[in-house]
Amino acid sequence: SRSIRLAVIPGDGIGQEVVPQGLKVLSAVLPQDVKLETQEYDLGARRWHATGETLPDAELESLKNHDAILLGAIGDPSVPSGVLERGLLLKLRFVFDHYVNLRPSKLFPNTATPLAGRPDIDFVVVREGTEGPYTGNGGSLRTGTPAEVATEVSVNTAYGVERVVRDAYARAAARARKKLTLVHKTNVLAHAGHLWKNIFDRVGAEFPEVTTDYLHVDAATIFFVTQPERFDVIVTDNLFGDILTDLAAAVTGGIGLAASGNINPSGTFPSMFEPVHGSAPDIAGTGKADPTATVLSVALLLQHLGYEAEAARVETAVAQDLAERTGDTPRTTDEIGDALAARVSG
Amino acid sequence: SRSIRLAVIPGDGIGQEVVPQGLKVLSAVLPQDVKLETQEYDLGARRWHATGETLPDAELESLKNHDAILLGAIGDPSVPSGVLERGLLLKLRFVFDHYVNLRPSKLFPNTATPLAGRPDIDFVVVREGTEGPYTGNGGSLRTGTPAEVATEVSVNTAYGVERVVRDAYARAAARARKKLTLVHKTNVLAHAGHLWKNIFDRVGAEFPEVTTDYLHVDAATIFFVTQPERFDVIVTDNLFGDILTDLAAAVTGGIGLAASGNINPSGTFPSMFEPVHGSAPDIAGTGKADPTATVLSVALLLQHLGYEAEAARVETAVAQDLAERTGDTPRTTDEIGDALAARVSG
Ligand SMILES: CC(C)[C@H](C(=O)O)[C@@H](O)C(=O)O
Ligand SMILES: CC(C)[C@H](C(=O)O)[C@@H](O)C(=O)O
Repeated sequence: SRSIRLAVIPGDGIGQEVVPQGLKVLSAVLPQDVKLETQEYDLGARRWHATGETLPDAELESLKNHDAILLGAIGDPSVPSGVLERGLLLKLRFVFDHYVNLRPSKLFPNTATPLAGRPDIDFVVVREGTEGPYTGNGGSLRTGTPAEVATEVSVNTAYGVERVVRDAYARAAARARKKLTLVHKTNVLAHAGHLWKNIFDRVGAEFPEVTTDYLHVDAATIFFVTQPERFDVIVTDNLFGDILTDLAAAVTGGIGLAASGNINPSGTFPSMFEPVHGSAPDIAGTGKADPTATVLSVALLLQHLGYEAEAARVETAVAQDLAERTGDTPRTTDEIGDALAARVSG
Repeated sequence: SRSIRLAVIPGDGIGQEVVPQGLKVLSAVLPQDVKLETQEYDLGARRWHATGETLPDAELESLKNHDAILLGAIGDPSVPSGVLERGLLLKLRFVFDHYVNLRPSKLFPNTATPLAGRPDIDFVVVREGTEGPYTGNGGSLRTGTPAEVATEVSVNTAYGVERVVRDAYARAAARARKKLTLVHKTNVLAHAGHLWKNIFDRVGAEFPEVTTDYLHVDAATIFFVTQPERFDVIVTDNLFGDILTDLAAAVTGGIGLAASGNINPSGTFPSMFEPVHGSAPDIAGTGKADPTATVLSVALLLQHLGYEAEAARVETAVAQDLAERTGDTPRTTDEIGDALAARVSG
């Protein structure tokens, strides 16, 4: 009989509220013969305040014994900016070699978009997740004085770029439109830009069926709001991907619907699934958080573990739920979770 | 009697078409007693093809003898990406120490925006122009091999950050809403982030009347499309500013209306004014280019040189021209230039 050993990190703020809904839907959609074993990890702001720890080695080791990780949200205003981001979230992405940071953007019917004319949006950003400006490389000299110099080093390797670019081509080849756009800033960031562009062109020869395109990151933001329908799959650097996927979320109904997967395609380490939104301390505890992004992240998790049919059922349930939302009876986090769980088990 | 010694670099593509319109409006708006002396510089793709030069020392020296520079656009597909950007455009910004890259965004009545509900947009981005990831610092090792490592180094100095932050505060203090937002990514780019944030907070003490705010760059892109009316003045790093100002242009009627000033506030070197758009080789020579962004850049130039009333007249002329556009009779580049010149001299 099959099983899924799932590590659960609810984290901070609304993470504590949306993760149970994700689990509810996951339990409801899984076939009876699949045993779901969850283990919860107490990581985040509370833990840091209590013990000063962000991600102890023992927990990191233990996390390796799971098939996947479901994460809610990390961060609280009471913790200095960056401590939990770098000591927990980015540490997980780097140590578990989540080099494919997968962020689909789809404008579901009946969801709000700030864009006039409701363009047809359905694209996926494949954001590199383990290098670029996110390595923590750099430093500062004469810190705090008028002579301070602070650097940030973006580190890009052929090894790191080639594997994510190849993954993006494969994803593009598997989609209907088969189009892949590289986004970078090659005219200014020439060293990294050449590396990305050369590898993008070279790997493209292996995928003759994929149409390719290149855009500077600044121009890409223009098309995200004027012609988002032109995109199918986008592959880009860690920082550009961070920026573009928040913008993508904003034009497709908001950060409350944006799902993501931090994927280690080799399977050496567990992949991690999380909503793109943060811990939203302003609404934490009010039952107002929309668990949909977490539920869509569960769909990505199911897909990653090979439960394609179940993933599709979760996506359909979300699409139907959104289609029937009227806006005049706001539901609680729990009610939305119940409704989605009922749909997938129905 | 007064005079303006203006260096003119039409550059490539539509730069050749829009710059004459900017000059037409400038001549029309200047008081009779102001002598306008223009000197044209042949720089850009044609020159590079003819001589291999991007910006020879003699020309750089000569450019220093001007009160300001009006630039059209640089770049052509026939020139390898980056050659003219780094060898000409960025070289001018760096050598002439254009540390304030000023980019106002205003949604004029009757102009198209991709945003539903037409929010009230009127903000200014103060983009740092002389450091950050734009320094060209970095390199590549084992180039072209599977073991390649390519780096890009963002260099940030207290000297460079403090002067642009102070300039931004002063601009915010002079506006009605007096609000300044710092945009960075302090939770990930901790070294540069701390430098920016500390200086932002410290200089703020000199401007108690200015309300301050901080946003991560990814979150800022969300607000650009969902709540752009929340912004008044934004100060940010060179690369984030590049990305955000293209997005800002997109939501305020497009890149065809976005003006910019590359300003050296100390006056040691001439400041340079240019539309944010590129050379648009696809429409070059067709008379379809809209010279409005160049004309609005001329308004920034006038403001910088102390011709406040004239700058205001140019802005008003543009607002009126846009308000009366019907869209059913497309005008040529030249006709729009004539119409604007007629309005300012009227
Ligand atoms: C919280 C932060 C470190 C993170 C990032 O920058 O990657 C977040 O913005 C995201 O996109 O997942
Ligand atoms: C052409 C390019 C080098 C330039 C930049 O990145 O600054 C442009 O995008 C701009 O915004 O003026």
